[in-house]
Amino acid sequence: MSGTERLDALRARYGASPDPALADGPWNDVIAGLLAHRTVRAFRPDPLPPGILETLVAAAQSAPSSSNLQTWSVVAVEDPEAKRRLSEVARGQRHVVEAPLVLVWLADLSRLGAIGRERDRPTDGLAYLEMLTVGVVDAALAAQNATVALESLGLGSVYIGALRNDPEAVAELLGLPPNVLAVFGLCVGWPDPERPAAVKPRLGQEVVLHRGRYDPALAAGAIAAYDAAMAEFQAGQRMPEVGWSGAALERVRGPESLSGRDRLRGILERRGFGLK
Amino acid sequence: MSGTERLDALRARYGASPDPALADGPWNDVIAGLLAHRTVRAFRPDPLPPGILETLVAAAQSAPSSSNLQTWSVVAVEDPEAKRRLSEVARGQRHVVEAPLVLVWLADLSRLGAIGRERDRPTDGLAYLEMLTVGVVDAALAAQNATVALESLGLGSVYIGALRNDPEAVAELLGLPPNVLAVFGLCVGWPDPERPAAVKPRLGQEVVLHRGRYDPALAAGAIAAYDAAMAEFQAGQRMPEVGWSGAALERVRGPESLSGRDRLRGILERRGFGLK
Repeated sequence: MSGTERLDALRARYGASPDPALADGPWNDVIAGLLAHRTVRAFRPDPLPPGILETLVAAAQSAPSSSNLQTWSVVAVEDPEAKRRLSEVARGQRHVVEAPLVLVWLADLSRLGAIGRERDRPTDGLAYLEMLTVGVVDAALAAQNATVALESLGLGSVYIGALRNDPEAVAELLGLPPNVLAVFGLCVGWPDPERPAAVKPRLGQEVVLHRGRYDPALAAGAIAAYDAAMAEFQAGQRMPEVGWSGAALERVRGPESLSGRDRLRGILERRGFGLK
Repeated sequence: MSGTERLDALRARYGASPDPALADGPWNDVIAGLLAHRTVRAFRPDPLPPGILETLVAAAQSAPSSSNLQTWSVVAVEDPEAKRRLSEVARGQRHVVEAPLVLVWLADLSRLGAIGRERDRPTDGLAYLEMLTVGVVDAALAAQNATVALESLGLGSVYIGALRNDPEAVAELLGLPPNVLAVFGLCVGWPDPERPAAVKPRLGQEVVLHRGRYDPALAAGAIAAYDAAMAEFQAGQRMPEVGWSGAALERVRGPESLSGRDRLRGILERRGFGLK
């Protein structure tokens, strides 16, 4: 990859020219691939070739797992009717139906519970918020490895956090036992070249990277610059030019802005998670 | 990569010969790199070259983020005394001191709270368990992208979930404001060739991959086979041949087996997380 392509990749990622430390840092094809990530919401209807699912799961399983407990599972959904019902949970997101494969990633504390019951051994540790955290982290690390793998094959994907709008409906549809949470979905398919996706800019590094100690001062200039970069990106996508911070604040305004996910704690408690 | 190398990679990952669907699936250098992941706990003392940190953060920021809220931050710790104190939290794990760089990945709901306060806008949605989940997922996706990037450069790493043994000590050391949780650390450095790491086998795919619906039947045969594969792996590493399921059950036996992390919920509440 030429130096120009690299600078272009960094400019697309930040909506701005990169600092010299970043522009002169190490680089290779894997890093170029990671930087080129884009969220794909428009898929060709073509099915996936054989073996893709198993390869993505092998990549996912190769991610680190906390104490090797492997407290995650994944359900592969390809049935059109099941995808339609998942899309309803996600407030009608069309790509959930369009994508040939929807992977539903689970924080799964049920497996260790079942092994414990079978051997008459206690698993009271599962009833703590810590263990839900372990399951969520395990599922996320696994899913992200699958995402990197699928993008390396030319496939595209989009995470569907909106499955948490109604975890009970997802549990019923997929037959999830107690102590299992569908953390998010991942729609997988061939990107539709007629409706191409773009690299979305992120906050400047000075906002998210802290050296030695956390700096609580808001990098107000950096956030204003990012709002401008996002507005420019949105203009290019023919989206409303709302920038970032105003839209982000709207998203966390209150329980009514959480699309039903303000009920998550109660639902988890009913579904067997101790959350102690 | 030859077909033999590929089969070897799959055999190492599962401690068994792979199913045909997996052995004949798609393959490339990125997937080979993901499959070859190993946890590195032995580092050379050499410092990291300039630009590595910035490149890893750019890779991390290129990971998907829920609604693009970017509810994560990272603290880069290189100071020996700070690393020593982090290692104390992690019950003396030596690699936290040995690694030239420790990245502490944060679920950060504080940034949006601060932006809201500055603009006199409500951010009551941050007080829900849902938003902690968003922050934890965002931090994990970002960290895993950094892990893929660093391994592509020949570096090695190990996640340190044990920072959750004492989140308050970590918060004090790193100056974390309320509504920020250190989800885990990540030690980064050059693997010491004198103390090489190995690929750890994982559960068979039939245990973690469900097709269409979750199958609650325990694949007892597959778990017994995995226990045997782990015992063989442990023998090769001159570790006690305890297998997997017994050790995993010990880890979740009860609050006393959680290394202090049974206190996580109370600590989060004291540190400003609403967890509603």
